[in-house]
Amino acid sequence: MPANTPVGGTLINRVANNPAKLRAEAERLPAITLPAAEVWDLKLLAIGGYSPLNGFVNEHDYASIIARGALTDGTPWTVPITLGVPGAGKLAAGSRAALKDEQGNLLGAITIQQLYPRRFEDEAKGVFKTLDEAHPGVARIRAAGQTLVAGEVDVLPDTLPAAEQGLIYKPAEVRAEIDKRGWKSVVAFQTRNPIHRAHEYLLRTALETADGLLIHPLVGETKSDDIPADVRTACYRTLIDKYFPKERVILAALPAPMRYAGPKEAIHHALVRRNYGATHFIVGRDHAGVGNYYGTYDAQQIFETYAPGALGIVNLNFEHSFWCNGVGGYATSKTSPFGKEQQLTISGTKLRELLAKGEYPPAEIVRPELAEILMAYYKTL
Amino acid sequence: MPANTPVGGTLINRVANNPAKLRAEAERLPAITLPAAEVWDLKLLAIGGYSPLNGFVNEHDYASIIARGALTDGTPWTVPITLGVPGAGKLAAGSRAALKDEQGNLLGAITIQQLYPRRFEDEAKGVFKTLDEAHPGVARIRAAGQTLVAGEVDVLPDTLPAAEQGLIYKPAEVRAEIDKRGWKSVVAFQTRNPIHRAHEYLLRTALETADGLLIHPLVGETKSDDIPADVRTACYRTLIDKYFPKERVILAALPAPMRYAGPKEAIHHALVRRNYGATHFIVGRDHAGVGNYYGTYDAQQIFETYAPGALGIVNLNFEHSFWCNGVGGYATSKTSPFGKEQQLTISGTKLRELLAKGEYPPAEIVRPELAEILMAYYKTL
Repeated sequence: MPANTPVGGTLINRVANNPAKLRAEAERLPAITLPAAEVWDLKLLAIGGYSPLNGFVNEHDYASIIARGALTDGTPWTVPITLGVPGAGKLAAGSRAALKDEQGNLLGAITIQQLYPRRFEDEAKGVFKTLDEAHPGVARIRAAGQTLVAGEVDVLPDTLPAAEQGLIYKPAEVRAEIDKRGWKSVVAFQTRNPIHRAHEYLLRTALETADGLLIHPLVGETKSDDIPADVRTACYRTLIDKYFPKERVILAALPAPMRYAGPKEAIHHALVRRNYGATHFIVGRDHAGVGNYYGTYDAQQIFETYAPGALGIVNLNFEHSFWCNGVGGYATSKTSPFGKEQQLTISGTKLRELLAKGEYPPAEIVRPELAEILMAYYKTL
Repeated sequence: MPANTPVGGTLINRVANNPAKLRAEAERLPAITLPAAEVWDLKLLAIGGYSPLNGFVNEHDYASIIARGALTDGTPWTVPITLGVPGAGKLAAGSRAALKDEQGNLLGAITIQQLYPRRFEDEAKGVFKTLDEAHPGVARIRAAGQTLVAGEVDVLPDTLPAAEQGLIYKPAEVRAEIDKRGWKSVVAFQTRNPIHRAHEYLLRTALETADGLLIHPLVGETKSDDIPADVRTACYRTLIDKYFPKERVILAALPAPMRYAGPKEAIHHALVRRNYGATHFIVGRDHAGVGNYYGTYDAQQIFETYAPGALGIVNLNFEHSFWCNGVGGYATSKTSPFGKEQQLTISGTKLRELLAKGEYPPAEIVRPELAEILMAYYKTL
């Protein structure tokens, strides 16, 4: 049994198979400069992480995604993948444009299907459920170009390094690993933090009834106060090497920007993981949330608004977990009847303080091997 | 969202609504004496635990169940529920017969649809995968009547006590509890042993991603060396009272005989739990096995031979679990990379020895409150 089918049935591949020709063509084309987050989106488009999208969405899909959480053909999709420019300039529907990063590197080209205005308020409310520009996702679409360029992309192979943070990251690579291991069920875990034991408990719990685990850290743009991807990667590797059976875990990078869109991004994260071959997706409390914009369970409940099977990937909802002395192990409010006085917990602030001072938190909260990696990082700050 | 639909869509109810009339009629009817195991089957038929069956199966269904694991209409069903008599005697198709237990108590009546010969070899091989009469399930059908009586049953309310081992046991009661609690997903756990921490780990793990847990001990005929149902019930109650959030657990009895049919009984157990409203069913290693008749994973793998959704209940497969010092918690071979030297385990024989001597096993293996109940029981032997 192969990895789960991609969204829409076919894994998209928009990597140019004649890079020299594309480079030659691009020299004569008007150029669009992509901000860092859009570069990550372009990479994912190229490798099929956003299948069935083969480029930046057009106006109909844009409106449909925002209004209904689906493409115009009904395929579930909750986050519009857009390319904003300050204005049309030399760009015109039916023509091609070069795509460059902010350093001027050529990334690929787009066949412009359409130019249309960003509907900022609709998008902010529909995707992020707020107009508040203090929300990092809203701030990004506010700062981005308000003219959207739709169209299929062609991406230079150079834009796609062999690895991201030393990790495999292409859906085809992860799917091949799943096939090689013969897994029928694969649970994917989205993370942008080191995995402490509370999250490790969710992983272990999910893995008990699945064939394998895809630990899938997001390595694209995140908030500036997040721990850097290379430090996180070192933590993931150490955790898996020491505490998990290697044959049951795939560690791969997700080269995507965080949007902090809460429930809409939870569905988005699940669909993208389906493209990576996963059959199940872990959804914790306030998944992909930020501040107080979303209810604790919004990101779990949104899955229930889709018909069974419609997403093609199953959400596994989890509560916060904690070491419980009463139970004598990890548990959650669903599985422990004991009160808070039996819980071993520590605030994020306190944890950072301890690590910065080079002091080990309790091993029931942070594995000592991971604590050491984090101590070394905090020393550099 | 209500409890899961019963197999076949409708919960069968064959409890006589005019017991006085049934009693009067039964006096004039020839009587069939049911062995203890068949009395339990009759109870389950009456309360819909075997829905869509409304009585003992006829020859077509009998042959279809044995050959294909399904009723003639295609409904999955793996264990034929039969009533054997030594010979036809005064029984005839189209007539009625009284049903009595071995103490002569009237239980109900059957409308005889058919009399047909038990095909011992087919049934033994098809259901139990062996002709070995040392197998307790095979021994039972060998010892039972070889003429099978098919037909719809009517059961006296007196046959159905208010509780079994002090527990609710009717599908309608359990379904009402599920509805009252508003659970959308319910994991059922079959057991005929006290729940030590290794099984508690499976329960806790399964409950993390479900709304609720149905701890569903089988209280009908089991092997004579099993711990008595009342002792087990005391253990279940104590475990739930102290170590689980009460609002997440239903404890109910399953008034069924054990057949030790391994994989075929695993499907049977799952279907019966669907009739009790469960959506998920825990399947461990060698589920419902005995001796070395079945492969370790046979009872898990048989679920894959049904099309997705065909059973209407989802199996959750588990490995054996153990306290692992390396992990610092419970784990299985799927989630722990550590060797046996890190596992805290104890043989069943050693455990019984300790308890019989009034010595506590490690709390990581048996909760002290349960150890005390078992010590008291072993003292009485």
